[in-house]
Amino acid sequence: MKYSANSVWENKDEYDVAVIGGGHAGCEAALACARLGFKTVMFTVSVDSIALMPCNPNIGGSSKGHLVRELDALGGEMGKVIDQTFIQSKMLNQSKGPAVHSLRAQADKAEYGRAMRKVLEEQENLDIRQMEVTEILTEEVEKIEKSGVSSSEKFESGENVSETRKKLRRITGVQTYSGAIYRCKCVVLCTGTYLRARCIYGEVSTNTGPNGLQPANYLTDSLKSLGIRMYRFKTGTPARIDKKSIDFSKMEEQFGDERIVPFSFTTDPDSIQKDQASCWLTYTNETTHEIIRNNLDRSPLYSGMIEGTGPRYCPSIEDKVVKFADKKRHQVFIEPEGLHTNEMYVGGMSSSLPEDVQYAMYRSVPGLEHAKIVRNAYAIEYDCIDARQLKSTLEFKNISGLFSGGQFNGSSGYEEAAAQGLIAGINAARKLQKKEGIVLDRSQAYIGVLIDDLVTKESHEPYRMMTSRAEYRLLLRQDNADQRLTPIGHEIGLISEERYQNLLKKQELIKNEIDRIQHVNIGTSQKIQNFLKKNNSTPLTSGIKLVELARRPELSYKILEEIDEGRPELPEDVIEQVDIHVKYEGYIKRQERQVEQFKKMEEKKIPADINYAEIPSLRIEAKQKLEELRPDSIGQASRISGVSPADISVLLVYLKAN
Amino acid sequence: MKYSANSVWENKDEYDVAVIGGGHAGCEAALACARLGFKTVMFTVSVDSIALMPCNPNIGGSSKGHLVRELDALGGEMGKVIDQTFIQSKMLNQSKGPAVHSLRAQADKAEYGRAMRKVLEEQENLDIRQMEVTEILTEEVEKIEKSGVSSSEKFESGENVSETRKKLRRITGVQTYSGAIYRCKCVVLCTGTYLRARCIYGEVSTNTGPNGLQPANYLTDSLKSLGIRMYRFKTGTPARIDKKSIDFSKMEEQFGDERIVPFSFTTDPDSIQKDQASCWLTYTNETTHEIIRNNLDRSPLYSGMIEGTGPRYCPSIEDKVVKFADKKRHQVFIEPEGLHTNEMYVGGMSSSLPEDVQYAMYRSVPGLEHAKIVRNAYAIEYDCIDARQLKSTLEFKNISGLFSGGQFNGSSGYEEAAAQGLIAGINAARKLQKKEGIVLDRSQAYIGVLIDDLVTKESHEPYRMMTSRAEYRLLLRQDNADQRLTPIGHEIGLISEERYQNLLKKQELIKNEIDRIQHVNIGTSQKIQNFLKKNNSTPLTSGIKLVELARRPELSYKILEEIDEGRPELPEDVIEQVDIHVKYEGYIKRQERQVEQFKKMEEKKIPADINYAEIPSLRIEAKQKLEELRPDSIGQASRISGVSPADISVLLVYLKAN
Repeated sequence: MKYSANSVWENKDEYDVAVIGGGHAGCEAALACARLGFKTVMFTVSVDSIALMPCNPNIGGSSKGHLVRELDALGGEMGKVIDQTFIQSKMLNQSKGPAVHSLRAQADKAEYGRAMRKVLEEQENLDIRQMEVTEILTEEVEKIEKSGVSSSEKFESGENVSETRKKLRRITGVQTYSGAIYRCKCVVLCTGTYLRARCIYGEVSTNTGPNGLQPANYLTDSLKSLGIRMYRFKTGTPARIDKKSIDFSKMEEQFGDERIVPFSFTTDPDSIQKDQASCWLTYTNETTHEIIRNNLDRSPLYSGMIEGTGPRYCPSIEDKVVKFADKKRHQVFIEPEGLHTNEMYVGGMSSSLPEDVQYAMYRSVPGLEHAKIVRNAYAIEYDCIDARQLKSTLEFKNISGLFSGGQFNGSSGYEEAAAQGLIAGINAARKLQKKEGIVLDRSQAYIGVLIDDLVTKESHEPYRMMTSRAEYRLLLRQDNADQRLTPIGHEIGLISEERYQNLLKKQELIKNEIDRIQHVNIGTSQKIQNFLKKNNSTPLTSGIKLVELARRPELSYKILEEIDEGRPELPEDVIEQVDIHVKYEGYIKRQERQVEQFKKMEEKKIPADINYAEIPSLRIEAKQKLEELRPDSIGQASRISGVSPADISVLLVYLKAN
Repeated sequence: MKYSANSVWENKDEYDVAVIGGGHAGCEAALACARLGFKTVMFTVSVDSIALMPCNPNIGGSSKGHLVRELDALGGEMGKVIDQTFIQSKMLNQSKGPAVHSLRAQADKAEYGRAMRKVLEEQENLDIRQMEVTEILTEEVEKIEKSGVSSSEKFESGENVSETRKKLRRITGVQTYSGAIYRCKCVVLCTGTYLRARCIYGEVSTNTGPNGLQPANYLTDSLKSLGIRMYRFKTGTPARIDKKSIDFSKMEEQFGDERIVPFSFTTDPDSIQKDQASCWLTYTNETTHEIIRNNLDRSPLYSGMIEGTGPRYCPSIEDKVVKFADKKRHQVFIEPEGLHTNEMYVGGMSSSLPEDVQYAMYRSVPGLEHAKIVRNAYAIEYDCIDARQLKSTLEFKNISGLFSGGQFNGSSGYEEAAAQGLIAGINAARKLQKKEGIVLDRSQAYIGVLIDDLVTKESHEPYRMMTSRAEYRLLLRQDNADQRLTPIGHEIGLISEERYQNLLKKQELIKNEIDRIQHVNIGTSQKIQNFLKKNNSTPLTSGIKLVELARRPELSYKILEEIDEGRPELPEDVIEQVDIHVKYEGYIKRQERQVEQFKKMEEKKIPADINYAEIPSLRIEAKQKLEELRPDSIGQASRISGVSPADISVLLVYLKAN
């Protein structure tokens, strides 16, 4: 036993919410709750490791950049902190359409953690406590279900209630390793990769969290005793190599953008232009692959030593070599871990091969011939949950007041974690405010797609965000995240009135400008014709609206400035929005119509007390799957794997009839 | 077993020295070896915790400030790094004589660690490896002793040798937790408080290093198997408290000096003048003491849960309350942990009382009524050695090439650790250079006192440096550390020629000026008499040398500037030296004569093959103690507890006769 009975004691500091974990999810959850006025305590096993980046030294990237923008638009912190602490910034996919433009920033890891910690430390209503939480404390309450009416919780015990009562548990607090009991009404679990964590490479295995930090060994049992089903996932990280030992002349230097774009809509772009650090590109080769293949029998992945399942879209180098056996080389992206350290991250070569194989493998890569490893690559296994036990609000279906976010929910990535942490934190606060939870749907945000996927679709591996997962990605652009979500953030209470008014002003400028160019006539003057000729565009035979001209593939709203004499002076971001609107209006409208269809299905709510067993002609598998997940809407039901379109039709008919 | 046999492999990177540990001792040891040209690898369980300050956020203080100055004068790094990263600086005891002036600087802990890590990372010949070392690898060699001749090692095995051969072990490398073998010729053990570390408060105990870091659980067994005797010591640290929760209006603000003095002789004082952070003074009271007394039965110190012995001169608050029962209050010194964090260190209140008692105890202190604890106070137990197994060079007597420094040697304090680390590193390098080891004696340096005490005197608690331990402290001032030690540092190779020449120039200026004022005549002019009157000094009846006047208690060399027309313009530090020289010349000369006596005893070397058992009329206890320690000199022999002046006389007579 870890402590004797007499060390159990009640901490009398009053808290509304306990957030467990100080990683990217925990930070956002804790800040959201505290900023919404609730006394919050954030537990972490190491104050020095708050907002740690135990893997890649960057924030954003394809689709992840969208998540950070969305989080920022809602009032989250990650975007602001990376804007303060990045050392290189790049808007990816600029040659492609605006839907897939994604911002990625290389972080100074130490500075990032320090800056985020400072924000937390300065936050009113928020206390940071270095302590492992070992138990979630709950009490039994009754949930009364009246037929046809959505459920409500009945907290007063002993009162006379109808027959259709259902028991569920409700949060009363947490207990720590030191024996202290903290009473609170909501708990947000953001344990990341720390639960019963095990780090593994080759034949070596240690019971530690990421980067050798203390694991949290006790909480899993407490969660299981609450009936929560746990998974065991794994992820991995490459070695860190001493910069002094790298020959950069054999690699391609990778620069940041000339004009740096911030993550946060609140950051003035002019304020963050600076000298940037470089990354470096190199490649594996046949020798590398041979070394790996020759030693696969010593890989804990293939020997069965690793039990957890790894992320399909973030595979280890040995995984890549096995699965893409015909590929002659894989990209290796050498990234600095910060400005004040010589450690370099070997992106693309995460591994859990034995140490000696790691040396051989890394040293086979051009430029790394004499690489000195500072920290080994390793895989990490940890306990997480089957997120289908959660509502779309990220509250556990059967434990009132228990929320969760981040890798604990079976995702991977700092940005996925932060986004969920923010939503879990917001919804814990809204529960205390007795307001309805915030659920973003798949047409509103990547965050909506992320959470809907997690809580709806069965997944046996860490979930990673990707643009291809978003059905309406032309609408869910990183550039319009503020327009999509800042009004919601304002309504929640995380966006200041000033920021909201600024958005409204921006939107008005966009609207007015679109309106204006729809009415501006372009004549057939020689100046116009010369301009068109210069831009390889067909001359005009008669007058035309400016907006029509702007839609021509070889032209754009921006280019037309030259001949648009009445154009007002507008901010960069307004110009960008008008440009995109004009260019993609047709596609956007089409996607908006699809969204209308989608919304109709989402709005068809399924009664909370539905009994799937009694629906005739519903296939048994569908009955089981629907009963297991108990979706909120026909829309969600239709996304459950194992529920077919025919099942949905049957369900619709049944609901109509009843 | 921690790894299977097939993961043992030989790392082919060539190293001369392996330093085990990246704390204050390890950093200095590694830098010294690398700077002296030897390929060095420094192992640490956490690269992020290099040069960690797990306890107080300051460097220096009484006698410890001397150590840092001396270390700097020899070419160590600590002084330079604290000069870069201090947030408050104060020369202590300025109202007292120059012997006890001591510099103390509050550090920004995170910045300190980062700056030191950067120095290590940039150091040529030095690699940093995040890995636990589990085994010291040795081979048996023969040491041949010819009577009357000091010992020399005989490495070639199989050769014909005389009968008086003795076996000893020699370093061949280290093995890591990951199974890698690193071959090297010297190892410097700087494991600090990490060996089988256990953190304890109340009934709670965890197997972790300081601040929750990974302990080193395996090395102790390897050391024991080499015949090394281990001790178990403990030390402790107070809680860290959230600045937001402290009421500073109830405390006394403590400021830094107006004119900041650097630690390093290489730092330009003008370059480090800056705004300083404040510390805060408050006191415990009868309520605090009552809370502690009422809960002593729950203290692991008194319940017997803690096995290790703690530092007498750095006691926990419960120790102070018990041992000084009549004291009505104890000082509490609230110190910032850095500029970028809200954590505050509660100096003077280290504790291992249970968590609930900690809350009550801290909250009884004025200004801490609503204190929120971020990290608990705790005691830490760890394995260390009986340092009498070491030579004065810090090499193990029976294991050639194995050196050690820092808390592993049974000391406490960052400065004590760094000083030993530097000497151990230097001597590992000198062993490889086949040069005699550097041993500073008690008349040369506090470092000499520190190491001589550690290797000579039996101690069952962590050793702390104090000015009272130095017999010749008027000579061992912090202000003249450069004059005492920089020539030695230059000879060792850690002090650049330029720095050495600067010292020679400074010494010449001092000498010339002392010479000048010994010859300057002061007459009885009205100006002079007026000056004396103004300074409450008796008027002159006849001419006098300036130096004589300067010796008057109410005057000084500095004050006499007004009437010293021929005084050249001199740097601050030269003026200070002349001033001290003039004022304390008599005392200094007396102490120099004592040193001569001391040196005579140190120079009386005892043959390595002496057989104490056969010395008639030597008391049995003396025989045992001398045999156990086998001192180098009569001087060292005389400092062994249990060896009396009479025993020394017997020994001297015996040596003369033989």
